[in-house]
Amino acid sequence: MKPVTATPVTLAEIAAALGAQLEGDGTLRIARAVHPAEAEGPEDLALAMEKGLAAALAEGKAVAAVVAEGAEPPANLKGWIVVKRPRFAMAGLTTLFEKPVHAEPGVHPAAFVALDAVLGEGVSVGPFAYVGPKAVLGDGVTVMPQATVGAEAVIGKDSLIHPGARIGERVVMGERCIIHPNAAVGNDGFSFVTPEPGSVESAKATGKVVGTNVLIHRVNSIGTVIMGDDVEVGANATIDRGTITATKIGSGTKIDNLVQIGHNVEIGTNCMLCGHVGIAGSTIIGDRVVLAGKVGVADHVKIGSDAVVAANSGVGTDIPPKAVYMGYPAVPRDRAFDQYKGLARLKRLFADVADLKNRVRALDASANVSADASAESTDDRT
Amino acid sequence: MKPVTATPVTLAEIAAALGAQLEGDGTLRIARAVHPAEAEGPEDLALAMEKGLAAALAEGKAVAAVVAEGAEPPANLKGWIVVKRPRFAMAGLTTLFEKPVHAEPGVHPAAFVALDAVLGEGVSVGPFAYVGPKAVLGDGVTVMPQATVGAEAVIGKDSLIHPGARIGERVVMGERCIIHPNAAVGNDGFSFVTPEPGSVESAKATGKVVGTNVLIHRVNSIGTVIMGDDVEVGANATIDRGTITATKIGSGTKIDNLVQIGHNVEIGTNCMLCGHVGIAGSTIIGDRVVLAGKVGVADHVKIGSDAVVAANSGVGTDIPPKAVYMGYPAVPRDRAFDQYKGLARLKRLFADVADLKNRVRALDASANVSADASAESTDDRT
Amino acid sequence: MKPVTATPVTLAEIAAALGAQLEGDGTLRIARAVHPAEAEGPEDLALAMEKGLAAALAEGKAVAAVVAEGAEPPANLKGWIVVKRPRFAMAGLTTLFEKPVHAEPGVHPAAFVALDAVLGEGVSVGPFAYVGPKAVLGDGVTVMPQATVGAEAVIGKDSLIHPGARIGERVVMGERCIIHPNAAVGNDGFSFVTPEPGSVESAKATGKVVGTNVLIHRVNSIGTVIMGDDVEVGANATIDRGTITATKIGSGTKIDNLVQIGHNVEIGTNCMLCGHVGIAGSTIIGDRVVLAGKVGVADHVKIGSDAVVAANSGVGTDIPPKAVYMGYPAVPRDRAFDQYKGLARLKRLFADVADLKNRVRALDASANVSADASAESTDDRT
Repeated sequence: MKPVTATPVTLAEIAAALGAQLEGDGTLRIARAVHPAEAEGPEDLALAMEKGLAAALAEGKAVAAVVAEGAEPPANLKGWIVVKRPRFAMAGLTTLFEKPVHAEPGVHPAAFVALDAVLGEGVSVGPFAYVGPKAVLGDGVTVMPQATVGAEAVIGKDSLIHPGARIGERVVMGERCIIHPNAAVGNDGFSFVTPEPGSVESAKATGKVVGTNVLIHRVNSIGTVIMGDDVEVGANATIDRGTITATKIGSGTKIDNLVQIGHNVEIGTNCMLCGHVGIAGSTIIGDRVVLAGKVGVADHVKIGSDAVVAANSGVGTDIPPKAVYMGYPAVPRDRAFDQYKGLARLKRLFADVADLKNRVRALDASANVSADASAESTDDRT
Repeated sequence: MKPVTATPVTLAEIAAALGAQLEGDGTLRIARAVHPAEAEGPEDLALAMEKGLAAALAEGKAVAAVVAEGAEPPANLKGWIVVKRPRFAMAGLTTLFEKPVHAEPGVHPAAFVALDAVLGEGVSVGPFAYVGPKAVLGDGVTVMPQATVGAEAVIGKDSLIHPGARIGERVVMGERCIIHPNAAVGNDGFSFVTPEPGSVESAKATGKVVGTNVLIHRVNSIGTVIMGDDVEVGANATIDRGTITATKIGSGTKIDNLVQIGHNVEIGTNCMLCGHVGIAGSTIIGDRVVLAGKVGVADHVKIGSDAVVAANSGVGTDIPPKAVYMGYPAVPRDRAFDQYKGLARLKRLFADVADLKNRVRALDASANVSADASAESTDDRT
Repeated sequence: MKPVTATPVTLAEIAAALGAQLEGDGTLRIARAVHPAEAEGPEDLALAMEKGLAAALAEGKAVAAVVAEGAEPPANLKGWIVVKRPRFAMAGLTTLFEKPVHAEPGVHPAAFVALDAVLGEGVSVGPFAYVGPKAVLGDGVTVMPQATVGAEAVIGKDSLIHPGARIGERVVMGERCIIHPNAAVGNDGFSFVTPEPGSVESAKATGKVVGTNVLIHRVNSIGTVIMGDDVEVGANATIDRGTITATKIGSGTKIDNLVQIGHNVEIGTNCMLCGHVGIAGSTIIGDRVVLAGKVGVADHVKIGSDAVVAANSGVGTDIPPKAVYMGYPAVPRDRAFDQYKGLARLKRLFADVADLKNRVRALDASANVSADASAESTDDRT
């Protein structure tokens, strides 16, 4: 699908593009897609697929709308489109009505492009952007104002680099990647070592701090970052390059804002890493893995394909494929739920145990009495 | 209050500006406000309102100071100001002695300002700043070096945009906003969808991964970000724009460094969002809400006005107004405290239960003996 | 050690530089250090110190390698170096084969350097970099393209400031510091105050929200940031300046990506702060402290030297020197392990207590019967 913002299209054309059912007047000409409460006239298409928006649609000025299957469209509509999977329809609708970034074709005179950089056809490089020595920009690449493409970096065709994004030296990106503002890809890894085992090594091994980090040596990052096609890197996210070889991000993987990916990490295809996720060095993540917001993953861990980790979890161990994990430390979801339920009922448990202690004390006492009594009666019998 | 750094003022004038009590020599001329240990001479005003600073004040070179009510000022002082609420006095003092940013008036020749951008009176645009097509800068706006104001963005008067901050296309900001270095406002939301229900949908519904994310479609963000007056956005913080309508930040709301605010989120007035807070898409936050450091809030959640959420909490459910929540998952503070107390005493509880099991086992055994004995004696009686 | 990438060196020379044992042919000329699977010819030195890489080494094209002591080198090698502490050897090896950043000597004509800035010998300032009024760059300082050195900032000699890093006004940095892309050092602190005690103050004191934050006043930051020598600040990390005096970072301290350090914080020497660590205002951290990924530390807390805090922990109290803490709230590691063990066994504990309740109920009943029986037999006896 291509954006259609330039010219109005008919409701029938939109329905056809979505593969959805058209009701009412398909000849309505549509110029914008809007929230039902923000519709201003007949060229506005109200997106009212969520249940909560029915009232806004009925009270608003829209005469054309998109509604979910099963919803009753209000009488003020002249035409509407019925979709089966609203979230998926939103992908199509926001593609039809996309508002692409403002980027002039060609290299702006106030950009810096190294003489030995290689630029493909239809490239756009904005003011104050920097394209370093021997960097390669594929056809249709857009480098927005003030962005950086480091020396020897290779940017695949039709990729979009937003303002302030930093593509480090030697980084290799696939096609159609989107790097959001101020993301930093290809930074030095956080890798230091002490000549003798330091405090973390002793803390992990023995639980005590034996060695101390009096001398810290830097491990330089002479590797890079390699990412596949259709990767997105969120605003202010960071991806460190590998120590010797490359940190790898598979095709189709989407990385949200403020995510940190450590050196030597390998991530498969079509993963979703939500805001503030952090992945420590050398961890390996399979395909289609979803890490919800703020998940932290330790170094040298393996997460299997299709695994889902719930928000705020701290992963310290391997996770098998298709597993759903949560908690800190992260455990399978059922066990985590048991733990939360247990925590919530813990106060009552303490009360129960205190009660039991009293009753058992009483039973002990009474058993002693009873034993004495038995003993007496036994005595009687002898 | 206006900064007075240009010319020394008298201690009496400072006391009057603060509405605070003056003791001793009010004619002392003051040029700087300093930490008591860093006072160098008679023109330095030592800020010694915290208890721990009494010794530094007594041993230092200051002859003028600000102290908290009830504190005994040392003999070396010639004049001092007594304040009732030290934290609040600090606001007034740091305003009096503010060090404003260095920004030249006018548009620097090395800035880029689109021909159709609209600039108010007294605007400052620094070197390598970018102001895009049809952008509007209100009177007195400062765009520091290397900052970005995207196409069609509207910046309210007297706002300050620090170096490297990125104001995305179509973003609307109120007056007197401060956007700190490398913040990114108006990024695309993290919104993707699979044609059929994917792994997260099945994990949420059933706890198991049924669908897999083989195909991922992008939901474009055709909305924007609208923020009120007096909003601050911290260094490297990120605010995504809405899918169809706007992500909204109310007037007076302060956002700390490295905070992430997802698409379609609505935040009321005078909220405080501390460092590393993350708010997922479509969540609604009332007025005067405080989210302490690292709080994560799930998507589509509602937090009532005046609620306070403690640091590191993970909010997965609605929170009522004026509630104090904490924990992961976040629960009312009293219940969280009960849980922590329970956790801390858990080891003892296990020991208690083990002990109880032994004693009940013994009681069971003795009850059987006793029952046998009773049975015997009963037998005897038959 | 100096990088040797320009000219090949012999295997013997590398072994000597590492102080490690040479085996086989020391005359092999080496041009690159590579992952064993990526070796392409005789000039590639395969770094195969990790156990998992033995197979890759045996199957690869390398004829020269570095291996860990005790490993059996495969037959295809002609020469190899044996190291005792592989992680430490990596520091030496990546220094020998370092790939330094591309930076032209001198001030690029498209850079902005204020007329009254002071530049040392051998300084490099890249395109679109900004060096403000009265800023001082020591000898050998590199300011990469699009980076910022604010007015009156002082950068110690041989420091490296990556693209997009923002060094705020008045910040003072020591020698050989490295500031990674888009880091922001010297931002305003997040410091606001209400005229009367606000919601957080009442929540902390009473657990209830009494005051509300209707009026919020700003506390300006008139202090700065002072950092020692050999400090690193990670990509997109943020360090706020002090309110009156300076936020301090000791020599040798390494700060990872996306770390937030609040105003007035003092950090000692040789600390390691991993990704997403957040430290709230006025906290004091000793020397050689390690905070693992995502650790949050409350304001006004003290952490003793050589302490280690495990990933994802939330620190709300002081930590003594050399202690190992973890959890939320963070407690000594042994206690945290007890808590996790307890949590994992909680479901069983509930079952045990339910079982005990049944058995005690039965014992109670039987004790009553027995008591009745005893009573009867006692009756008999009377």
